[in-house]
Amino acid sequence: MSDEFDVIVVGAGPAGENAAARAARGGLSVVVVEAELVGGECSYWACIPSKALLRPVELAAEVGRVPGLTLGPIDVDAVLARRDEAVSHLDDGNQVKWVKGIPAEFVRGYGRLRGPRQVEVTAPNGATYLLRARHAVVLATGSRPVTPPIPGLAEAAPWTSREATSVTAVPRRLAVLGGGVVACEMAQALHGLGAEEVTMLVRGHSLLGRVEPFAGELLAASLTDAGIEIRTGVQVTGVERPEPGGPVTVHFSEGPPLEADELLVATGRRPATGDVGLDTVGLPEAGPVRVDDSMRATGVADGWLYAVGDVNGRNLLTHMGKYQARVCGDVIAARAKGEPDDLPAMRDIADGYGAPQVVFTDPQICAVGRAEAQAREEGFDIRVIEYDLGAVSGAYLLGDGYRGRAKAVVDERRRVLLGVTFAGPDVAELLHSATIAVTAEVPLDRLWHAVPSFPTVSEIWLRLLEEYGL
Amino acid sequence: MSDEFDVIVVGAGPAGENAAARAARGGLSVVVVEAELVGGECSYWACIPSKALLRPVELAAEVGRVPGLTLGPIDVDAVLARRDEAVSHLDDGNQVKWVKGIPAEFVRGYGRLRGPRQVEVTAPNGATYLLRARHAVVLATGSRPVTPPIPGLAEAAPWTSREATSVTAVPRRLAVLGGGVVACEMAQALHGLGAEEVTMLVRGHSLLGRVEPFAGELLAASLTDAGIEIRTGVQVTGVERPEPGGPVTVHFSEGPPLEADELLVATGRRPATGDVGLDTVGLPEAGPVRVDDSMRATGVADGWLYAVGDVNGRNLLTHMGKYQARVCGDVIAARAKGEPDDLPAMRDIADGYGAPQVVFTDPQICAVGRAEAQAREEGFDIRVIEYDLGAVSGAYLLGDGYRGRAKAVVDERRRVLLGVTFAGPDVAELLHSATIAVTAEVPLDRLWHAVPSFPTVSEIWLRLLEEYGL
Repeated sequence: MSDEFDVIVVGAGPAGENAAARAARGGLSVVVVEAELVGGECSYWACIPSKALLRPVELAAEVGRVPGLTLGPIDVDAVLARRDEAVSHLDDGNQVKWVKGIPAEFVRGYGRLRGPRQVEVTAPNGATYLLRARHAVVLATGSRPVTPPIPGLAEAAPWTSREATSVTAVPRRLAVLGGGVVACEMAQALHGLGAEEVTMLVRGHSLLGRVEPFAGELLAASLTDAGIEIRTGVQVTGVERPEPGGPVTVHFSEGPPLEADELLVATGRRPATGDVGLDTVGLPEAGPVRVDDSMRATGVADGWLYAVGDVNGRNLLTHMGKYQARVCGDVIAARAKGEPDDLPAMRDIADGYGAPQVVFTDPQICAVGRAEAQAREEGFDIRVIEYDLGAVSGAYLLGDGYRGRAKAVVDERRRVLLGVTFAGPDVAELLHSATIAVTAEVPLDRLWHAVPSFPTVSEIWLRLLEEYGL
Repeated sequence: MSDEFDVIVVGAGPAGENAAARAARGGLSVVVVEAELVGGECSYWACIPSKALLRPVELAAEVGRVPGLTLGPIDVDAVLARRDEAVSHLDDGNQVKWVKGIPAEFVRGYGRLRGPRQVEVTAPNGATYLLRARHAVVLATGSRPVTPPIPGLAEAAPWTSREATSVTAVPRRLAVLGGGVVACEMAQALHGLGAEEVTMLVRGHSLLGRVEPFAGELLAASLTDAGIEIRTGVQVTGVERPEPGGPVTVHFSEGPPLEADELLVATGRRPATGDVGLDTVGLPEAGPVRVDDSMRATGVADGWLYAVGDVNGRNLLTHMGKYQARVCGDVIAARAKGEPDDLPAMRDIADGYGAPQVVFTDPQICAVGRAEAQAREEGFDIRVIEYDLGAVSGAYLLGDGYRGRAKAVVDERRRVLLGVTFAGPDVAELLHSATIAVTAEVPLDRLWHAVPSFPTVSEIWLRLLEEYGL
């Protein structure tokens, strides 16, 4: 194998894979470096397994709302087997084959920058060697879970999202530290799969801090109704696990301690920049790698360094990482060939509009663009429209007691949507209509002519526009 | 009650109701005339009850694809009870209240044009009286099922969509004449609710003639797999039912006759214009009432007559009727007040793009805009993109053996979408993204930045655009 390539991609999660594929499509030679599994966090320990665990739980909830249907007990082993299949039994053989078919060279090892256009790879056997890039190095090293500095926590061997999504035996008593997406999804999944006592320990006063408050409230009500305990405004002062594998005790600033069989820490993630050699190219070692809208790292002479996905801190979401990677791969190829590098597809504009996100709980929480508070903070002249999703015929027909709500934030000056939030069952696929409306800045007067089919939940679009006064 | 109003609306289905509401919102006095139930075909004998019957069947199919879940037998009585609730037990009290709250006057009776701006109402007791319109009369009389002229058919008291959606005892053997939306939906619903032998008798060679052929093929495969027999290219020569309520025998031009317990005729609908007095205003009595894009009937002096919904023959779909009604009510109010009548909301442009439609079967069949054949016929310079929906991660995670397909028709000159078809489970809410893209003519280069959330079925958008070459 040559040690020189047009492009070196460090990290073979979805973002790295896509950057490699787009650069190669542009005619460049590419090498991809990955120390763990090709396919990344998403494929083995995040989106894919969590959705596989949530799907039967979500469907069971839907069935529970439809008169005439009765579900037997969930066969947890079958669910876990399906999850195992979804994560390819943690075997990345097919993904490696896919990378090679890009075509790209693949090397297994830990990649670290070592000065301009150079990456040092530490092979699994400990040997190191140097790769050189003629044009660009792309960092796609993802992120790592944050463990808060709580006395005894690290020693208690808590679960992160990895252990939760890899679960082989559902704990009877689960404590969950955090109230974000991972915390909510895993609390609901594991409760649905048999965890009898699930307790969410939330430092703030609501779930899902980044979305519209009503969405977190709807979700909290649903989780509580299902039997999950949510404690908000909680300060954890210490954790004890005297025996490895034994019960965990969580201590609080107030009130009695909580005992659980496992403790899941889901308090966020940070860009994986700690040990990737940023210091060798004059960048700060901690924090995200700051990039411009072409995904090029700022502050690097000659502009050969790029960063896509979680590591640049823009939006820690698989689909946004993949999107950035497409931009990045195209830009690198264009620049390498001296072709125009500012075509429409060569700038990340989506992150600026506000990334779409779906939380796969029951109810599903879907949002794109700016929440009301953010839009106000940024000084937009806005008007807010809200509507009860359950009052839409298409939602009523999905089941008894459908509960949901929608909210849209309108930029009054241009009469376009700045943000849309849907919270309710069966709205995950509805979100993309809002993503298009927000991203393409479709004027309300035009959206009025996009007629939702009857009777679908999508009719919420009509109701929102009527509420607006159209 | 006065006999003179600004606007007379004949027919109180969803289209009539909306025309009345929008005209009243514009400050006009309105009277609504309805001989049957306020809420119309859709609310009692079409969209609403069919979806109520289909929902448990569709969900059962979804559950069948998810390892770990097992469904008990469907409790048909509970499903029918929920259907009865959904159709308000055929009581239109709340809808009448809604109409009065518009506010509008409501009269129960059969309305018939009687010369310019006049409607003769035949009350339930047989008395007749005349209503006069100062500004406009809106025909919203809907449509009636077509019964083909097959010897013995009418005498055999076949089911129409009304009897099928009102079913109180599921027949063991059901024959279905037709292969369109009603035929497919009711065949699947009643089969799922216990009809053991369901035979679809289709004159043509495919199901759902108006959508992309692959969609009808996917649906046919699914229905066949479920145990429904589909006979295509069938010519029915006669029907016999010697005893009322007894078995029905269907005879064919070839092959042995078929015996069934009920025969559903679902061979289309025609505008309900036969007996609405069109002759008194100089219009042909049969066929749809032709209208311009403001919903005004063409060929009527002084332009006081409007027609919305099925009766104008544009698109026999509830949501399109409601849309036309909003246009119509706004236009009438504007013209009555001498205000501009050509604001963006005052023209029907959606029907021209191609109405969106969802068939609530398993798989769901969703389409908006032009199918390939239609686009070619109209002379567009097109390119077609297709992709296997089951190859999208979000679809795979919905269940084992997810089968689906998507197709998009691109106007190459303008790089916008002319039509999109999704066929697969759980795509009903995805359609609205396509409806917005087609109706707002969002350029492909902009759709590229509308990032679908991972892992949803919506990622098909990315795959289609990649297939296109973006």
